[in-house]
Amino acid sequence: MAPSDDLDNLPTPPACIADFCLIPLGTPTASVSKEVAEVQRLLKKSGLEYSMHSAGTTVEGSWDDVMKVIGQCHSMLHQNGIVRIQSDIRVGSRTDKTQGFRDKVEAVEKLLKEDQTSL
Amino acid sequence: MAPSDDLDNLPTPPACIADFCLIPLGTPTASVSKEVAEVQRLLKKSGLEYSMHSAGTTVEGSWDDVMKVIGQCHSMLHQNGIVRIQSDIRVGSRTDKTQGFRDKVEAVEKLLKEDQTSL
Amino acid sequence: MAPSDDLDNLPTPPACIADFCLIPLGTPTASVSKEVAEVQRLLKKSGLEYSMHSAGTTVEGSWDDVMKVIGQCHSMLHQNGIVRIQSDIRVGSRTDKTQGFRDKVEAVEKLLKEDQTSL
Amino acid sequence: MAPSDDLDNLPTPPACIADFCLIPLGTPTASVSKEVAEVQRLLKKSGLEYSMHSAGTTVEGSWDDVMKVIGQCHSMLHQNGIVRIQSDIRVGSRTDKTQGFRDKVEAVEKLLKEDQTSL
Repeated sequence: MAPSDDLDNLPTPPACIADFCLIPLGTPTASVSKEVAEVQRLLKKSGLEYSMHSAGTTVEGSWDDVMKVIGQCHSMLHQNGIVRIQSDIRVGSRTDKTQGFRDKVEAVEKLLKEDQTSL
Repeated sequence: MAPSDDLDNLPTPPACIADFCLIPLGTPTASVSKEVAEVQRLLKKSGLEYSMHSAGTTVEGSWDDVMKVIGQCHSMLHQNGIVRIQSDIRVGSRTDKTQGFRDKVEAVEKLLKEDQTSL
Repeated sequence: MAPSDDLDNLPTPPACIADFCLIPLGTPTASVSKEVAEVQRLLKKSGLEYSMHSAGTTVEGSWDDVMKVIGQCHSMLHQNGIVRIQSDIRVGSRTDKTQGFRDKVEAVEKLLKEDQTSL
Repeated sequence: MAPSDDLDNLPTPPACIADFCLIPLGTPTASVSKEVAEVQRLLKKSGLEYSMHSAGTTVEGSWDDVMKVIGQCHSMLHQNGIVRIQSDIRVGSRTDKTQGFRDKVEAVEKLLKEDQTSL
């Protein structure tokens, strides 16, 4: 079997949680709120679960769907005239359990709540 | 003047916003909620403004204070027996205006609200 | 036109440079060199241009090809028994010029070389 | 003992390896090579061990020294008129062994070399 064959049969993860922070370069102003708002509008159209915070936007779905929509955010801003875009993406996948991004916060908050109970 | 002299006189930014995601390596389980809860307790003691979300924790203050507290999070977990820790930090500084991390979300939400008004 | 229609027609970038750092969680040891070596072997099979450094691996190609291969790295390690993987990806796309990752280093080194010439 | 007391006594890690990618915002051009060259000159003055690659610069030293020099890079560029700077920092610390950033690459390359030997 040729080396490329097994790579073709290797799937991408069926589920992942990605948090991305997109930065346009070479723009007239240092503000990025207009671009971030456009990203939120695009994510809304995508139908994927997502949530914005002050340092990025978290989105969950299959690896392919999530990476496709982040790439589309780049393309949309390029079409709007931004010539260079840099994103930082933190992405996690796991096989031991199904966990949405909201569950992660709840797990920590539950532990912190026990602090108060034990006082 | 020696090259090192001017470097000694170069300050770090008086204000920054950092978002960090800390990952312990070589732990018995794949869960990190216990460690993230410990990080939140340490941040509370620091007196800095901070906020946890599903993909990290945002903290603001002077560059030195913020980086010190993230380093202390590493040290605390090392003291708890975790031999290796990797963090991803997104950090921004700006001189054009004073902006807390909560202001950043508000600026975008204001733009998104105008979408609905203009319908 | 329905909102989803224009999203279907929005492509992902034809070229990008991504630098990723992959971290397995819940492994018996804190060493990751075995996993990083497996990632290099997979990248070699992919046919994409790539280069490893001490803090990650840089890979270039179309957005879809690059993100697919990083997702396949996650899947491969999951198949090898690692239940949770977290990656940090720095990805950039630009429309103003075609630039490979090796060109970026050369542009900076050219500037630094001029320092010595002007002494 | 007051909660802040034990925080004052908590040190930052004596050694770490950080890889950072610095992005200036609101600049006239999308090119960042001039800024990256300035960062390299500053790192040279610092006396810390460092190495540039196409997606960032790796630097090693004590947590305080490393974070201070990255903060100084921000300040230097602010002094040069750049009003906003965003950096992505991947930083790791470990207590199980002393490892420089060059050792990490060697450990992987050694594994990959065994592939060829075993053919």
